[in-house]
Amino acid sequence: LVRIAIKSRQLPYSCPIFAGYFPGILEKIYCSIITIGDELLIGQTLDTNSAWMARELNRKGIPLRRRVAVGDEPDAITAALDEERRYSDVLLLTGGLGPTSDDITKEVLCKYFGTRLIVNEGLRQKLIRLFESRGLPLLESNLQQAEVPESCIIIPNEQGTAPGMWFERDGKVFVSMPGVPLEMEAMMTSVVLPRLTERFHTPEIIHRTLITSGMGESFVAKRLEDFEKQLPDAVRLAYLPSYGYLKLRLTGFSGGDISMKELVSHHFSMLEQQLGDILVASEDISISAVAGKLLAENRRTLAVAESCTGGCIANMLTQVPGSSAYFKGAIVAYDNEVKFKVLGVDRSMVMARGVVSEETVKQMAAGARELLQTDYALASSGIMGPGGASEQKPVGTTWIAIADGQELITRKFQFRFNREHNIRSASIQAILLLIERMRHPAESSNRK
Amino acid sequence: LVRIAIKSRQLPYSCPIFAGYFPGILEKIYCSIITIGDELLIGQTLDTNSAWMARELNRKGIPLRRRVAVGDEPDAITAALDEERRYSDVLLLTGGLGPTSDDITKEVLCKYFGTRLIVNEGLRQKLIRLFESRGLPLLESNLQQAEVPESCIIIPNEQGTAPGMWFERDGKVFVSMPGVPLEMEAMMTSVVLPRLTERFHTPEIIHRTLITSGMGESFVAKRLEDFEKQLPDAVRLAYLPSYGYLKLRLTGFSGGDISMKELVSHHFSMLEQQLGDILVASEDISISAVAGKLLAENRRTLAVAESCTGGCIANMLTQVPGSSAYFKGAIVAYDNEVKFKVLGVDRSMVMARGVVSEETVKQMAAGARELLQTDYALASSGIMGPGGASEQKPVGTTWIAIADGQELITRKFQFRFNREHNIRSASIQAILLLIERMRHPAESSNRK
Repeated sequence: LVRIAIKSRQLPYSCPIFAGYFPGILEKIYCSIITIGDELLIGQTLDTNSAWMARELNRKGIPLRRRVAVGDEPDAITAALDEERRYSDVLLLTGGLGPTSDDITKEVLCKYFGTRLIVNEGLRQKLIRLFESRGLPLLESNLQQAEVPESCIIIPNEQGTAPGMWFERDGKVFVSMPGVPLEMEAMMTSVVLPRLTERFHTPEIIHRTLITSGMGESFVAKRLEDFEKQLPDAVRLAYLPSYGYLKLRLTGFSGGDISMKELVSHHFSMLEQQLGDILVASEDISISAVAGKLLAENRRTLAVAESCTGGCIANMLTQVPGSSAYFKGAIVAYDNEVKFKVLGVDRSMVMARGVVSEETVKQMAAGARELLQTDYALASSGIMGPGGASEQKPVGTTWIAIADGQELITRKFQFRFNREHNIRSASIQAILLLIERMRHPAESSNRK
Repeated sequence: LVRIAIKSRQLPYSCPIFAGYFPGILEKIYCSIITIGDELLIGQTLDTNSAWMARELNRKGIPLRRRVAVGDEPDAITAALDEERRYSDVLLLTGGLGPTSDDITKEVLCKYFGTRLIVNEGLRQKLIRLFESRGLPLLESNLQQAEVPESCIIIPNEQGTAPGMWFERDGKVFVSMPGVPLEMEAMMTSVVLPRLTERFHTPEIIHRTLITSGMGESFVAKRLEDFEKQLPDAVRLAYLPSYGYLKLRLTGFSGGDISMKELVSHHFSMLEQQLGDILVASEDISISAVAGKLLAENRRTLAVAESCTGGCIANMLTQVPGSSAYFKGAIVAYDNEVKFKVLGVDRSMVMARGVVSEETVKQMAAGARELLQTDYALASSGIMGPGGASEQKPVGTTWIAIADGQELITRKFQFRFNREHNIRSASIQAILLLIERMRHPAESSNRK
């Protein structure tokens, strides 16, 4: 799905995005991620750790070659270690460090590196203090977390009890971290990534990302054909599509001898110019954060009236830290009586035109803006499925509106996903309409 | 993290949950998932496909041995095929079937199986009709999706344009599906899973799941020590912890000669009895769906007043199809003025006690119940971070309340996650409080 502008496909087998840059100048290292846990093999847990690690490695210019998930079995873990060390220089392991009997990563690593477990007195004291402060009984299984392999470097766990471990052998690095996301992320950020970039002299990486909406990936790619052709070898373009919008990322790899930052900036400006009509933002932040920045910069406030999106628009907006500065609130008017009573939507109009209609979202937006006394108000009404459809209004039929005191702009959509993604897509489109209205107040008009 | 009650660890290296059952009676097969796409290696995409497939395979009793993610590189895909066929009988591939130049899975499979691409006339006609009906130009790259390897069995794609492919060699099955979740899920459900259970005579699997809350995993495990000991070999217990609740699943594997359903039911009843005081539900559905069922069964209605959760409670509740039958709506009162004006919260009380206080959530819940005329109303107010904390009220301090016309019950929490998970945890606790209040109306009382 990610299209990469690579001039020649004659690259060594490797992560294609980073492969083959400045051969000879920089050390080229590869990484594998091994996630350990039965919960990954029965679908209990979504592997968010690997995605987070992949993103951070990519930002630091460390190419990820493979991601592997195995169960809590010694042989499975050992086989994965043997295999991935053939592919990669750095093996990052998560999971299997907890206090229960199925957490066996530490023992497996001890055996793998021919070392033994010893009690670390500092860790033991920390555990005793922690359990005392929480007023919990300290079980034998908890105290075992103070035991660490003798030959490893300990990575402190500021967020929990299981320490991380850094092993080296034959020039290869093996890092074992807990599977708890916050603990793993803290270790990666404060210790593992800085140590890796230092240890392997990774390249300087410059990323610049912009967000577009309103044009499909293949049409954007067609427009950028010439742009891609003139890109220097050291700068790559990636297409990162999502529901309702498309991110484009320029990446520059520097050997230290050229001013990569300026080079990427130059091409990024060209990209911004070519995509000016569909540009949503020139940085890599969420759509909600884009809307939030615009609202905050212009000292504008926002209210939301949600029917079909059921709170999702408000939820997305309030995920952004500091959103209370511009987001006043939402009326989730799921029941029609709430639309009539709280938002002041006209009952007879709804009876005549239906609740999923242009006039309904107009009145909802106007009502929310009036009630919450804001500059802007968004509204949604639609049929998210699986039930509720009629012949005229199939599942996915959705109306969105924005009120700003001057005009009431509406959009109609026909989503084709399941309930969850219909709700999400409608919410994203509502926030995109707000961004468009703030960016180009003169150009917005009703589209169906 | 998933603790499995296995009496003997002397199992062959395999997925530990299913390994070693009824040797000789049933064919024992293993599966590997290979996900293909550079987007997985740069952290652009969260691999939800693998988790979904793992869950469905598990339900059908097909043990998953490994999950591997590789980039859009022929050698990487070929190496993964060679490797995983050593581990597994069934290799399920997703991704790399799109129309762009980096989608190379089909060509790689052609080469791997020594076959060639031929145009499938039925697929070609379907593509032409589809693009006509959508009024889109049909590019050469789109028409190539009608080409399929000569030696494979085609799996129709009801949701999109790229067909799935089923290969067999040396008794092993290789299935290639698109990476688009809806397309993959439809193929798995309608073709792949039924064919696999038929082809490999997989065992009859009975799962029974219950949900508990209010007690940590290790304490539940301690209580269930004797229960686990008396479990027959053919029945397994798994602990599936989540934010704020814990799922316990009994799984029975039948060789066809015993009434597995009755056996699992018997032990499930014992489990329900032993956990009666912390039982939330006796089926595997979301917390929102549990609350929804209770509301619908008792013909009760619900409103929500959200401050810190910012719409997340409403969003979770309305993810459930049919929620409009009992959920009337929500007031997301992010700004204090909305609390005063719309919910009727007393301004001077907030000035005196602070907005994150027991009295505030009580008044919010009462106000929402009154305004939306419902049987129950939930309310939330807290500090989700990273900003907004004080010495008395650190990040994570959260009050939850429920109003039911008789009493106002409140709970105080101290969450220790990041903003996103604090919001999510607070929302889950609010819904759990509603369930508790409906289940045990006499026993609820304020807890801090």
